[in-house]
Amino acid sequence: MVKHFLFILLITFFISQISFAQTGQTLINYSVADTAHPSPYNFYGAKYPQIEADSRVTFRFEAPYAKIVQVSIANVPFDMVKGDDGVWTYTSEPQDAGYHNYWMLVDSAIVLDPATDAFIGYGHNCNGFEIPDPDGGFYEIKDVPHGNVLIRNYFSKTTNSWRHIYIYTPPGYDTNISTRYPVLYLQHGGGEDQRVWIEMGRTNVILDNLIAEGKVKPFIVVMETSAALKPGEIPPMRRLPRRAPQSGQTAPSPLPRMFFTFDTYKEVMINDLIPFIDSNFRTLSDAQNRAMSGLSMGGMVTRAVTLTNLDMFSYIGIFSGGTIAPDDIKDKSKVKLVFMSYGSRERGASGVKEAADVLQQAGIKSFSYVSPNTAHEWQSWRRSLKEFAPLLFND
Amino acid sequence: MVKHFLFILLITFFISQISFAQTGQTLINYSVADTAHPSPYNFYGAKYPQIEADSRVTFRFEAPYAKIVQVSIANVPFDMVKGDDGVWTYTSEPQDAGYHNYWMLVDSAIVLDPATDAFIGYGHNCNGFEIPDPDGGFYEIKDVPHGNVLIRNYFSKTTNSWRHIYIYTPPGYDTNISTRYPVLYLQHGGGEDQRVWIEMGRTNVILDNLIAEGKVKPFIVVMETSAALKPGEIPPMRRLPRRAPQSGQTAPSPLPRMFFTFDTYKEVMINDLIPFIDSNFRTLSDAQNRAMSGLSMGGMVTRAVTLTNLDMFSYIGIFSGGTIAPDDIKDKSKVKLVFMSYGSRERGASGVKEAADVLQQAGIKSFSYVSPNTAHEWQSWRRSLKEFAPLLFND
Repeated sequence: MVKHFLFILLITFFISQISFAQTGQTLINYSVADTAHPSPYNFYGAKYPQIEADSRVTFRFEAPYAKIVQVSIANVPFDMVKGDDGVWTYTSEPQDAGYHNYWMLVDSAIVLDPATDAFIGYGHNCNGFEIPDPDGGFYEIKDVPHGNVLIRNYFSKTTNSWRHIYIYTPPGYDTNISTRYPVLYLQHGGGEDQRVWIEMGRTNVILDNLIAEGKVKPFIVVMETSAALKPGEIPPMRRLPRRAPQSGQTAPSPLPRMFFTFDTYKEVMINDLIPFIDSNFRTLSDAQNRAMSGLSMGGMVTRAVTLTNLDMFSYIGIFSGGTIAPDDIKDKSKVKLVFMSYGSRERGASGVKEAADVLQQAGIKSFSYVSPNTAHEWQSWRRSLKEFAPLLFND
Repeated sequence: MVKHFLFILLITFFISQISFAQTGQTLINYSVADTAHPSPYNFYGAKYPQIEADSRVTFRFEAPYAKIVQVSIANVPFDMVKGDDGVWTYTSEPQDAGYHNYWMLVDSAIVLDPATDAFIGYGHNCNGFEIPDPDGGFYEIKDVPHGNVLIRNYFSKTTNSWRHIYIYTPPGYDTNISTRYPVLYLQHGGGEDQRVWIEMGRTNVILDNLIAEGKVKPFIVVMETSAALKPGEIPPMRRLPRRAPQSGQTAPSPLPRMFFTFDTYKEVMINDLIPFIDSNFRTLSDAQNRAMSGLSMGGMVTRAVTLTNLDMFSYIGIFSGGTIAPDDIKDKSKVKLVFMSYGSRERGASGVKEAADVLQQAGIKSFSYVSPNTAHEWQSWRRSLKEFAPLLFND
């Protein structure tokens, strides 16, 4: 009797809806391209953002008492229109293929839609939506052997704190117990952390697929945030995204920001992270078998770490993060390969091939790549990883 | 030159703030108890929610043009007060120890604060904050051997789709390659998914610590969402959380909800998930070495799956999810142990010991547990796992 009463209570109060949006490995189904469909990051039952057949995106947001509601797509705000039912709607221009961050501005307050999954970007959480790419099969989960993504913690003496890492081990790592593997250290961009190369970057899916095709030599990937402070180190200041002034509403003044170097993270990597990885995983720990790459600010971290430690790294990848010149490399014999890429809509795209040519002429094996019709966003970096990975650890 | 121009661009536009809030293994530092401190889920630089020394919580939210702003703590809204600077503040009553969901109501719109990490609950994303527990060391990351949390995907024939799982493998799993392990299938609550037992539940940290103390026999944990639909199956309807009417603002009518059973998920588990786990991990695959437990709705899933499959499961745990009566168990010889628990603030707490006594008298080994001073929230379930785990796989 007590039991049944409790069960009725439970049924009444605690059965909520189920959810299909799931961080890490959200299903992206290319059979829905050319058909209007909910974005795959929407929680179950949430139809909006709706991806239209022509890659426009329709947003819907209930805020009956707000004066102005905007949706900010990749940090650019667009006005929504209020309906008689208090629901605001907006349909965007066609969006580029791939993942895009967005958030809501409700009467100038930056907020997230709770009905869509959240992902770190711009130093805070963002909502996300996904536009199908006709050539996006390389990051679709397939019936091939799958590696593991591991969530681990390790203690850093440099920061005197536990730090969080994501590690990809390739298919077969668990069973080929006498095999040792090369390692790629893969960096996020500014305001992101170790999660993004799995959640938006789909690193494990991309590598599983490339390994299955025989295009990539299996390797381990280590992802960690470059945010690192020593005890007592003064932290960088906080910065909010810019907010466009709105009619009748004054935009709040942005909070101060601070520029910082990557000296502490370099110490973390060299003294704490790499020793932890090499002693806890079956790695090949010489420079010939260690690579580092990163996107945007992560490209700067990659430069800062690798160019001053060429005895530890021989493969370098910079995605949407500037270029490397011959003079930056003190000992050319130690660099196996430099890879530099941009999305075609980025200003850096025009110079990346020339930069690679200059390096090549200086005797450093170099590759460049420009992702067609993409900006400073994840599709450029998924594709960059797809181009970079087959070049690794082949010598 | 091009390079330096690009770098200045990068520095100007793309270096955002760094972040310390990180899904999965957020640091919880008990040295900050009895001291006002930012909640550990805040992104870097965000001081609010601030946990006060007496476990009150101060919220701060910038919404200069809103008429009414509320913060909803565990689905109960509280009015915030607007300051001259357009910033709304509220300091709560003292909160129970542990993790709590919250969200913002800005002029009746349910939204999330982007400066605090988001976690699934109530069928959508929520913000979270954490109150230190003087006895919370059992879920604090310690310098003991750590197991792995694996993010994996597998294909379910029942749903005809890829499904996402989190798997905990205990310390030593990677190196003791001839050892096979028992398995606990661990279920989330209504409106949650496979992430929560790691992100809020801290299952890996709890088990690492208990294993290090010699209190728990090492076992594998498998976490999956019970949300499962066969192709063509009619989905359950969506329900939004209730919203309290506000002065001058009409609360939107809640969307329809739907009750549903767990028949499809039972098929997924028996026909797809368990075979995948037993063929891809070094498990002990007999009923003596398989347990299932869940919280709230997950307790109902556990009942639905285990009580109809006693040849496959011999350990059963129900956390804040009702009780089991002797008549529910068809073959008492097949059940090694039943564990039932509640938070002391839940209505079910008063009956759980009696329910265990009745089972015990009927010849079924049973344990009950009531978590002191906690409600239908995560602290009850972290503690329940801590009490349940040492009872497993000892016979």
